[in-house]
Amino acid sequence: MFDQVSIIGCGLIGSSIFKGLKKVGSIKKIITFDKDKTVTEIIKKEKLSDEIFNSAGEAVKNSDLIIIATPISSFENVLNSIKDNLKTGSILTDTCSVKIGVNKIFKKINLKNSICIPGHPVAGTESSGPKAGIADLFQNRWTILTPNKNVDEKALKKVSNFWESIGSKVKIMLDEDHDKILSFTSHLPHAVAYNIVQTSMSNDEETKEDIIRYSAGGLRDFTRIAASDPIMWRDIFIDNSALIIKAIDKFIKNLDEFKKAISEKDSKKLLEIFEKSKEFRKSIIKAGQDTDKPSFGRK
Amino acid sequence: MFDQVSIIGCGLIGSSIFKGLKKVGSIKKIITFDKDKTVTEIIKKEKLSDEIFNSAGEAVKNSDLIIIATPISSFENVLNSIKDNLKTGSILTDTCSVKIGVNKIFKKINLKNSICIPGHPVAGTESSGPKAGIADLFQNRWTILTPNKNVDEKALKKVSNFWESIGSKVKIMLDEDHDKILSFTSHLPHAVAYNIVQTSMSNDEETKEDIIRYSAGGLRDFTRIAASDPIMWRDIFIDNSALIIKAIDKFIKNLDEFKKAISEKDSKKLLEIFEKSKEFRKSIIKAGQDTDKPSFGRK
Repeated sequence: MFDQVSIIGCGLIGSSIFKGLKKVGSIKKIITFDKDKTVTEIIKKEKLSDEIFNSAGEAVKNSDLIIIATPISSFENVLNSIKDNLKTGSILTDTCSVKIGVNKIFKKINLKNSICIPGHPVAGTESSGPKAGIADLFQNRWTILTPNKNVDEKALKKVSNFWESIGSKVKIMLDEDHDKILSFTSHLPHAVAYNIVQTSMSNDEETKEDIIRYSAGGLRDFTRIAASDPIMWRDIFIDNSALIIKAIDKFIKNLDEFKKAISEKDSKKLLEIFEKSKEFRKSIIKAGQDTDKPSFGRK
Repeated sequence: MFDQVSIIGCGLIGSSIFKGLKKVGSIKKIITFDKDKTVTEIIKKEKLSDEIFNSAGEAVKNSDLIIIATPISSFENVLNSIKDNLKTGSILTDTCSVKIGVNKIFKKINLKNSICIPGHPVAGTESSGPKAGIADLFQNRWTILTPNKNVDEKALKKVSNFWESIGSKVKIMLDEDHDKILSFTSHLPHAVAYNIVQTSMSNDEETKEDIIRYSAGGLRDFTRIAASDPIMWRDIFIDNSALIIKAIDKFIKNLDEFKKAISEKDSKKLLEIFEKSKEFRKSIIKAGQDTDKPSFGRK
């Protein structure tokens, strides 16, 4: 597949790719790099790299595949710091949750001797940092690739095979389709989760304590994704703001109709919504995207 | 404790109480009753009752404790059908998720020879029906009791001990406090979950399929509670509508501010919200109300 792979940015995703690749054992040498010194210390301690370098530029020198797994706000800086050191014919990909923005930066920097194939593994947990990595994180999850029309087909195939080698399924789509779909499946749910927590916290101290105490009635489910990496999510919301605002507006419209239904005691409408929701949940489980164990199998 | 207990309504909660009591073995005789014939068949098959009766009235005749575990829309009917058969000195309680409404009905029917102590075990899964019952459902969860000021203290103690015997912690509070707190911890999250699913489903077929496929990015967490029992939730929304609408309005106000922050690229405000959310999640885990395993320990 690839002789040498560099992973730039060793958080939850970067360290999971490293562990996944090590488990499979298909790559001769895997280099991980992170600009954060605390992270570098952990990389050393946890043996998350075959070789340690002091800069992103050095870390990519002889690599066949470079994966940029940083938040999008660091993306352009990373590209600038590695662009002169890339091996001719090397392939660049990334793991950002927004793809129009990534494509724009790739276009702007315009790497002449490398092939750029933006990607997004739709996988993760609420934990972040290099210690959070899991070798099986991508098992049965999707990775979406959003290449340009005139992409090198051989390189695209290689990147697809790469993700499949660590358990992922691969889908190719337009960056604009990706960003729209993710605005519903991921960005809107996160916006809602953060704001349901905000709403709970806007009560007085005593009520807040009670809310925490009785959170098992539903609230706790929302707080899981609201514990995700702040920097990453700030970047996503700012980068995909137009589509996210559209999704939020659609959601608020639905919520207003729902308010009307409950104040009018519209039993029929409510039951219709609830029954449809049950069906939707079933489809997600059928698609292998969640567990059918009650309470997510919590113990 | 009690010699004979009757559980009226044998869904997730009723059957979990039955199983919990059987596991502990503290009650001589436990009668469960459900007006639904399909449920009665399951009660027989799964041995969820020490004795089967054909009416709620007969099922309560010699019982010391009667637990009404039906949706609130059936509550008044159940009370009317049992009121003439209650043993003098018997205690009545319930498991409804709304408490002002239950207190009103207790007041309206005014049982002279029995003591009424409304209750709500804050526990559950997204499954419903008698087969969904789990003996440990109430372990480390709270049960909230909302008795009148002039309640019989001995009876209150007995009901508290009862819930503690099947693993629950017990808190006593005013019905109005209960309904307010639950509007944040449970009712608002459910309203939001249903509407986030509605928003996703309002797309065209192809987009909808994609949304299901990539739901692991966050959406799937919301669909769990949106799969809960429709009748129960219709009743809760209609019964507690005033407080729920208040909570929804507060939530929409937060969401509008959030929209402003992302369109203005207000990094500071966003990071502040996200950091606070992480802290809130930590408090919930510290309070023993959720697991700290990443992804809820999904496998």
